[in-house]
Amino acid sequence: MNQHIAPETALARFAAIVGERHVVTAPGDMAPHLKEARDLYQGVARAVLKPGSTEEVAAIVRLAREARLAVVPQGGNTGLVGGQIPTGDVDAVVVSLTRLDKVREVDALTDTMTLEAGITLLKAQEVADGIDRLFPLSLASEGSCTIGGNIAANAGGTAVIAYGNTRELVLGLEVVLADGRVWHGLNKLRKDNTGYDLKDLFIGSEGTLGIVTAAVLKLFPKPRARATAMAAVPSPKAALALLTLAKAQAGQALTTFELIPRIGIDFVIRHQPGTRDPLATPSPWYVLIELSSSQERGTEELLEGLLGEAIEAGLVTDATLAASLDQRTALWSLREGLSDAQRYEGGSIKHDVSVPVAHVPDFIAEASEAVRAFMPGCRPVPFGHMGDGNIHFNVSQPEGTDKDAFIGRWDAMNDLVHAIVVNYGGSISAEHGIGRLKRHLLPGVKDPVALDLMRAIKRTLDPQGLLNPGAVL
Amino acid sequence: MNQHIAPETALARFAAIVGERHVVTAPGDMAPHLKEARDLYQGVARAVLKPGSTEEVAAIVRLAREARLAVVPQGGNTGLVGGQIPTGDVDAVVVSLTRLDKVREVDALTDTMTLEAGITLLKAQEVADGIDRLFPLSLASEGSCTIGGNIAANAGGTAVIAYGNTRELVLGLEVVLADGRVWHGLNKLRKDNTGYDLKDLFIGSEGTLGIVTAAVLKLFPKPRARATAMAAVPSPKAALALLTLAKAQAGQALTTFELIPRIGIDFVIRHQPGTRDPLATPSPWYVLIELSSSQERGTEELLEGLLGEAIEAGLVTDATLAASLDQRTALWSLREGLSDAQRYEGGSIKHDVSVPVAHVPDFIAEASEAVRAFMPGCRPVPFGHMGDGNIHFNVSQPEGTDKDAFIGRWDAMNDLVHAIVVNYGGSISAEHGIGRLKRHLLPGVKDPVALDLMRAIKRTLDPQGLLNPGAVL
Repeated sequence: MNQHIAPETALARFAAIVGERHVVTAPGDMAPHLKEARDLYQGVARAVLKPGSTEEVAAIVRLAREARLAVVPQGGNTGLVGGQIPTGDVDAVVVSLTRLDKVREVDALTDTMTLEAGITLLKAQEVADGIDRLFPLSLASEGSCTIGGNIAANAGGTAVIAYGNTRELVLGLEVVLADGRVWHGLNKLRKDNTGYDLKDLFIGSEGTLGIVTAAVLKLFPKPRARATAMAAVPSPKAALALLTLAKAQAGQALTTFELIPRIGIDFVIRHQPGTRDPLATPSPWYVLIELSSSQERGTEELLEGLLGEAIEAGLVTDATLAASLDQRTALWSLREGLSDAQRYEGGSIKHDVSVPVAHVPDFIAEASEAVRAFMPGCRPVPFGHMGDGNIHFNVSQPEGTDKDAFIGRWDAMNDLVHAIVVNYGGSISAEHGIGRLKRHLLPGVKDPVALDLMRAIKRTLDPQGLLNPGAVL
Repeated sequence: MNQHIAPETALARFAAIVGERHVVTAPGDMAPHLKEARDLYQGVARAVLKPGSTEEVAAIVRLAREARLAVVPQGGNTGLVGGQIPTGDVDAVVVSLTRLDKVREVDALTDTMTLEAGITLLKAQEVADGIDRLFPLSLASEGSCTIGGNIAANAGGTAVIAYGNTRELVLGLEVVLADGRVWHGLNKLRKDNTGYDLKDLFIGSEGTLGIVTAAVLKLFPKPRARATAMAAVPSPKAALALLTLAKAQAGQALTTFELIPRIGIDFVIRHQPGTRDPLATPSPWYVLIELSSSQERGTEELLEGLLGEAIEAGLVTDATLAASLDQRTALWSLREGLSDAQRYEGGSIKHDVSVPVAHVPDFIAEASEAVRAFMPGCRPVPFGHMGDGNIHFNVSQPEGTDKDAFIGRWDAMNDLVHAIVVNYGGSISAEHGIGRLKRHLLPGVKDPVALDLMRAIKRTLDPQGLLNPGAVL
């Protein structure tokens, strides 16, 4: 039974499963699946397979197992930690899920939609919108990232403060296991206490425990009104006090709370045509704040009242409320342009980290001081989801220095910043995952018992190490 | 190393761990830990151990392992499926967690509290209240059930529609594993994508994979205003349409949506002194609806507007808004008195089930018809958390018949109702868990692949079957 299949023979048998034209082997055709956004990895694969159904995915996995080929699942190939790229250390096939793009069901009364894994996030948002509902997951890459990838990575984004991570948005899953069986877990229930929570084991496991082929996702009432403001704050500490005030006054209506440093605003204004300073006088820090409500009226007044009180308390020095959709877009573009604008300022060493919300100000201060001492002239640009304690602590290179030399210090600077993160009980990967990029860091930051449990679970669910070897563990 | 320790010797060594007086062996002292509310199980244990710290729990588990004694963790002993009661089929000790009752930390800026497992839910609510926050979990047994038990059972309750189950309220856990090691996972982070989600594996595992000793729990802004109404609706279908309308208009402000049949109101009025009909004319069905908001004003108007629109649309025939705290209490007492009032009407066969929200009306109709055909004269009292699809389908015995004969039909009626539940893609245990009561039902209703995965995980985390054997699997 354990007869080895020659990989060449396997390719012909893969073609019999998915069809000749869905077995991609020409280097030019494979290329879009083997490179990723930041050019950190150059993939190596025997083929890219494009199954069109769950059964085809299962058949691929069974055959790969027989042929001793590793399987690397891939969605929109937008991951930032290399989890979707086989790197040549084992003989592997990429399984691209993009042809699994059917909307299986939309249920307005239960407030769920059942989507196949290859559907893009943008399309998922549109499906929800089509029945006057909100699917709140929202990311920079939403036009190309897929629901399957979002689930594999437990994607975060800008609405987590109100709606949670991807994990909180999933009710049920359909998963192809490492032995080629299919777990039919497309549960539409809000309450189900019949045994262990398998769903959450697969969510965020980055394709190492199973391949998600479909999911039941939660839908929410669509907000009827939104109020958006950019508030100037003197410090992250003032921003934290503003956050506490906003939660007390707006409660669940608080849907965005993003911290932006002055240097970030400078970068965006400098490099993104059409953007401009949100307020007359520059401030060292800003908060992009948004409230959403199912009621047509009252949201703007609520935000005005909140900002007024914050100004009186000295937490906010100035603020502007968006009076139109255009003005809202202009404020959001200052936040959304941050990552891209940094590219024009030379190299940028990234840290996707989180700490308990209470420690965000101290973390920013301490980490900024540490990297400046480590490399005089470097420019920290800490920004992001302050409401979740998730700061993108990106550091731009010193002006007028060599980019490659700067990027060469990536690991050393990471070590410095991550040590501070761990000291505050934080996470070295708040929303991007571990993938291949951060795998070597895990033993240094993770509770050894947790790591041991993770390894035991991997051995149990994938004893042959077939699924995405080299990622996470 | 594998030397067997005589159980008698083990008791002396347990005393060395927890102290002589915390090893309870006298039948009278053990009794409160070996009987449960519904008198379905009479427990048998060698001793009840009352550790005072996580380290003592770990030492107990290590010693129990050596002595080949099973360990049954117990919180407030309020579980409804016997998960906390050893039944004598194996030699076992009960580990009561109630002495682990320290508030380890309250963090108002991060909106978390870190509590030991033995703290009661009521105390947890009070800790939150003490810093002007809400811990939204709310159950009938909150005065005696414990946080550890809530987590082990993934408790639900009346606020799930707005805040989720216990699972959604937990950020981090500390767990004693079956090998006596401690997983230190008291994470306070809203975002952490560094590997597999271990936390959710333990939540809802009913003490079979590890013993929860402490948890980090989420806190929420405290609502400043609440509006409560009892609405008369002609049918569950109208109630469903009202739910859809309420979600669209009130969004996240909708915090309660409970369905009550007329017979339930009759029972409460008949048996609970001081209760009375909420409306002038009887209605076949009622909905207890509550909105909550962080804003002082507008909530009552919102509810009035919603009910007005529902009356115009024919979904609601009459409604009363609570104009005072007393009136609110009176409306809630009609809902909260339901379980108890049924006791005075003779035997009651219970089904804690859920279906996709869209199917609630069909499920109620079909199951009511089925049990009436099965046993003419029996009186279905389907009530509960309609917003979550979770109906307590309780059936009172026919008037004037023998209670024991009726209760003797428990399993047969369960089979009938559960078959309908499964047909609608529902769950046979929405919020009470599997425990010992429903274990035999699992193979009939659960996806075999899921069951297989559960067994594999149990073998991996507890290869000797030390923790709560006989529960769940």
